Amino acid sequence: MDKPTILTGDRPTGPLHIGHYLGSLRNRVALQDSHRQFVLLADAQALTDNMNDPARVTRNVDEVALDYLAVGLDPAKVTICLQSQLPALSELTLLYLNLVTVSRLERNPTVKDEIQARGFARDIPAGFLCYPVAQAADITAFRATVVPVGEDQLPMIEQTNEIVRRLNRQTGRNLLPEVTALLSDFGRLPGIDGKAKMSKSLGNAIALSASDEEIRRAVRMMYTDSNHLRVSDPGRVEGNVVFTYLDAFDPDKAELDELKAHYQRGGLGDTVLKQRLEAILLSVIAPIRERRAAHAATPDTVRDIIRDGTMRARVVTQQTLDWVKSGLGLYSF
Amino acid sequence: MDKPTILTGDRPTGPLHIGHYLGSLRNRVALQDSHRQFVLLADAQALTDNMNDPARVTRNVDEVALDYLAVGLDPAKVTICLQSQLPALSELTLLYLNLVTVSRLERNPTVKDEIQARGFARDIPAGFLCYPVAQAADITAFRATVVPVGEDQLPMIEQTNEIVRRLNRQTGRNLLPEVTALLSDFGRLPGIDGKAKMSKSLGNAIALSASDEEIRRAVRMMYTDSNHLRVSDPGRVEGNVVFTYLDAFDPDKAELDELKAHYQRGGLGDTVLKQRLEAILLSVIAPIRERRAAHAATPDTVRDIIRDGTMRARVVTQQTLDWVKSGLGLYSF
Repeated sequence: MDKPTILTGDRPTGPLHIGHYLGSLRNRVALQDSHRQFVLLADAQALTDNMNDPARVTRNVDEVALDYLAVGLDPAKVTICLQSQLPALSELTLLYLNLVTVSRLERNPTVKDEIQARGFARDIPAGFLCYPVAQAADITAFRATVVPVGEDQLPMIEQTNEIVRRLNRQTGRNLLPEVTALLSDFGRLPGIDGKAKMSKSLGNAIALSASDEEIRRAVRMMYTDSNHLRVSDPGRVEGNVVFTYLDAFDPDKAELDELKAHYQRGGLGDTVLKQRLEAILLSVIAPIRERRAAHAATPDTVRDIIRDGTMRARVVTQQTLDWVKSGLGLYSF
Repeated sequence: MDKPTILTGDRPTGPLHIGHYLGSLRNRVALQDSHRQFVLLADAQALTDNMNDPARVTRNVDEVALDYLAVGLDPAKVTICLQSQLPALSELTLLYLNLVTVSRLERNPTVKDEIQARGFARDIPAGFLCYPVAQAADITAFRATVVPVGEDQLPMIEQTNEIVRRLNRQTGRNLLPEVTALLSDFGRLPGIDGKAKMSKSLGNAIALSASDEEIRRAVRMMYTDSNHLRVSDPGRVEGNVVFTYLDAFDPDKAELDELKAHYQRGGLGDTVLKQRLEAILLSVIAPIRERRAAHAATPDTVRDIIRDGTMRARVVTQQTLDWVKSGLGLYSF
């Protein structure tokens, strides 16, 4: 039990794709022996901007859990749990909301960006404004000390540590541990059209359940260098989606470097590159897809895994809540 | 079980006073046979502006429970329960926060007034901004259809019904009942110095545990008409605190009307009025104080009453949470 504790998770708003795999899932699998890990199906957080269609969130809980099992997360090693079934998270959130001012929440860069991206303007749901505090509740409830994040989520870690320090200062002791961000090696994988955000709804994603044919089609459609018209032309590597994907997934970095040089001086066609990428992606996704299909055939087992994990998570999060309340001197029976 | 359900409660930030008795407690006792009643010790809400001193809230939970028993609330008829021990309230609050916009919360007149009164300016704790939603969660969790309030709390009822209607519209059925405000007969009782707000911290309150001597002193200090210098002078009844208290507590309205007329034409001294009021207040408070002292002698019993009520309230509030979640189609095991 001396392993550091990690919290990871996803908003179940759709099945996960290869971008999730690269940026996060692969790393979780790599850490599942060295770390104590909780993986949160963040359905309550997904409701902060999906309250018009809660069924969409419900539907995707099982899908995302399937993705977890498909990539090789092992429920004997990691605890997969469902946020909305952990009341201590709600209780901690409401407690922490008293420690954070409205103007502090409005200054959160992630919240600001997301508000703009979603077009909420002044009609932000209050739950959406408050979600960084809910995330702080999640992280601290599991007493996580390490949270793998992208650059864009660093403000969330900062908000969490502000709350932790405030509680520790007020109670005069080390009530909760501060948390460290673990930045992922890869930035965000772009969509096959080169757009920064890959998503199922934009039609530019490769799902973890993609068939061979879907993978082939996606690679065929993938953006390269629009000025690279003839094989003999010199081509650009930067911003070339195929190379971005090869950087992410090609195990032979030396050969990849040679291909880049060849492409840049001219004489290397997109087709060769795409065939290479296609083969790599097929080999990455095929075992994931097969494990996914196997688990999908036993939905009751998947639900049992979620339920068992949630029950274990309930104990841990309730302990933290009790600990924080008693540290603050709140009433208890 | 066909009785209408009432929710009442208090923020446990200090022992209750005679203003609470007049405006609310007396009425709760009167309704305890005709209504199913939950009385909420709102310690979680009290934390929204007492997070610097949670111990103050904790300390006053038992004090306020004692006040309840002292005025004659009967735990066999009403359910006295502790807000922070009812996780379903937090869960419903977070769910409802997704249905209410930040600008709607900022427009809440009660919140606006209170923000000003507390000098929060832009540094409003997020929990404070959100408390009308927490109140909506409280009211609906108990499936209350009647909530006794003062005029100033009508916006809270409005906010609750907005959420109820939104849920009912979205789910296409009568998921939750709308709630009706029960306006109290008396407005707010002023402090003995004539200030609109009576509070222990202002030193202008008469506690429900006040001794005879404290009551006498309070009545002696009470403001009358500062221009009524000699007994023979005509005096003012409006804004005269002694008459305000007599209006509230004197059972003999006919005689009181005669006294008012006499006072207005001159010839009636403050001393006569104050003696009358003193006798009345002594007779109102003496039995309350005695019951309070008797209960205070058995603190374990008081804690048992709170715990038993809270356990019963847990069942009711959890049922509502399950009902709302299942109505919205949220994930359940």
